[in-house]
Amino acid sequence: MKTSIAVVGGTGAEGSGLALRFAGAGRPVRIGSRSAEKAQEAARRIGGNCSGHTNADAVSDAGIVVLTVPLAAQIETLKAIRASMAPGAILVDATVPLEIAIGGRISRTLTLWDGSAAQQAARMLPGVPIVAAFHAMSAEALAHLDHPLDCDTLICGDNAEAKAAVSELAALIPGVRAIDAGPLDNARLLETSAALLISLNLRHKVKHSGMRITGLPVGAGA
Amino acid sequence: MKTSIAVVGGTGAEGSGLALRFAGAGRPVRIGSRSAEKAQEAARRIGGNCSGHTNADAVSDAGIVVLTVPLAAQIETLKAIRASMAPGAILVDATVPLEIAIGGRISRTLTLWDGSAAQQAARMLPGVPIVAAFHAMSAEALAHLDHPLDCDTLICGDNAEAKAAVSELAALIPGVRAIDAGPLDNARLLETSAALLISLNLRHKVKHSGMRITGLPVGAGA
Repeated sequence: MKTSIAVVGGTGAEGSGLALRFAGAGRPVRIGSRSAEKAQEAARRIGGNCSGHTNADAVSDAGIVVLTVPLAAQIETLKAIRASMAPGAILVDATVPLEIAIGGRISRTLTLWDGSAAQQAARMLPGVPIVAAFHAMSAEALAHLDHPLDCDTLICGDNAEAKAAVSELAALIPGVRAIDAGPLDNARLLETSAALLISLNLRHKVKHSGMRITGLPVGAGA
Repeated sequence: MKTSIAVVGGTGAEGSGLALRFAGAGRPVRIGSRSAEKAQEAARRIGGNCSGHTNADAVSDAGIVVLTVPLAAQIETLKAIRASMAPGAILVDATVPLEIAIGGRISRTLTLWDGSAAQQAARMLPGVPIVAAFHAMSAEALAHLDHPLDCDTLICGDNAEAKAAVSELAALIPGVRAIDAGPLDNARLLETSAALLISLNLRHKVKHSGMRITGLPVGAGA
């Protein structure tokens, strides 16, 4: 599998934060954006082994593609990258179906025909291992390399090897524990829990609430 | 406000666990069940200032009514108690709309017409302050008085005084932190997060997973 990680939507707050953490851990990162220039700017800010590309170029040489775009851009972006993805590459979908996509609130979710944004991605990329993860990571917290995070990330998908690879990716971020949350069918639960954290952030005027699951056995990781 | 707490569905695992904790903290508890005999048996097992009644009798002398029944029994139970509730009493709804109510899975949720089980309760009890809380409390963990829990309970509702009263109730259980999660409209997020914990319990073969929210300011309680 190719060693680079593509972060599509990598100029956004969440994508930039994840790219910073992966690059900070020494992994080659390819930032994707609709604009190659903006992606290159973001890559320069991050430094390390980080380069900027159009979305389609970013994914062409990546073993793992992390999709961090707003819901309203998810389908269009998947159409833009699907022909360019490397054989065997994994798609990590972090999309949260927030009502803001149709002019509503950021603390409410939409019900999608496929059940979840991750399942929508799976329908659009037949044959590609899809993993839902990184939904509720605070962009604010990711942005400070010297601060460990304090949250779990729940991971679901139907391909055990892909989940394990994404779990390793999560482990690159200090303070993050990856937890196996079952098949892709559970992605709606993860996406909804992200909306809950967004709602708590708004209510309590913070930007970095997170979630920890207690009471799990050691080794509950994906 | 009347000082007793009624636990309707108090012979079930979750209800019994909550009743045990409230009675253990010295509060008068009225266990309600369709069968007064079963309620009395449960009350004897719990001891303390705990009595058993039919559901309608249980709520007649309670300032707070905690509803812990399966979804399939929620509407029928609300019909059975609504005429008997004391003026000013609060209803705490802990119902989780699990698919098992229609013969499906315990790790999946149903979409209700009202948006959430708590909003369904609110529609059925006009004028009664409704608070959604205690969804994801492990019955297993509640059952052991000598063990503190390790979880937050998210609380939502449209009446600030009612939320504060339920927050105090939650504080009777060692290890539990009550967090204000906004208006009743958010109850679906809390109910879904309970389904997530149930799903994690099944997957990781435990009975007491819980949720902690990190990154909130001190005093984020309801």
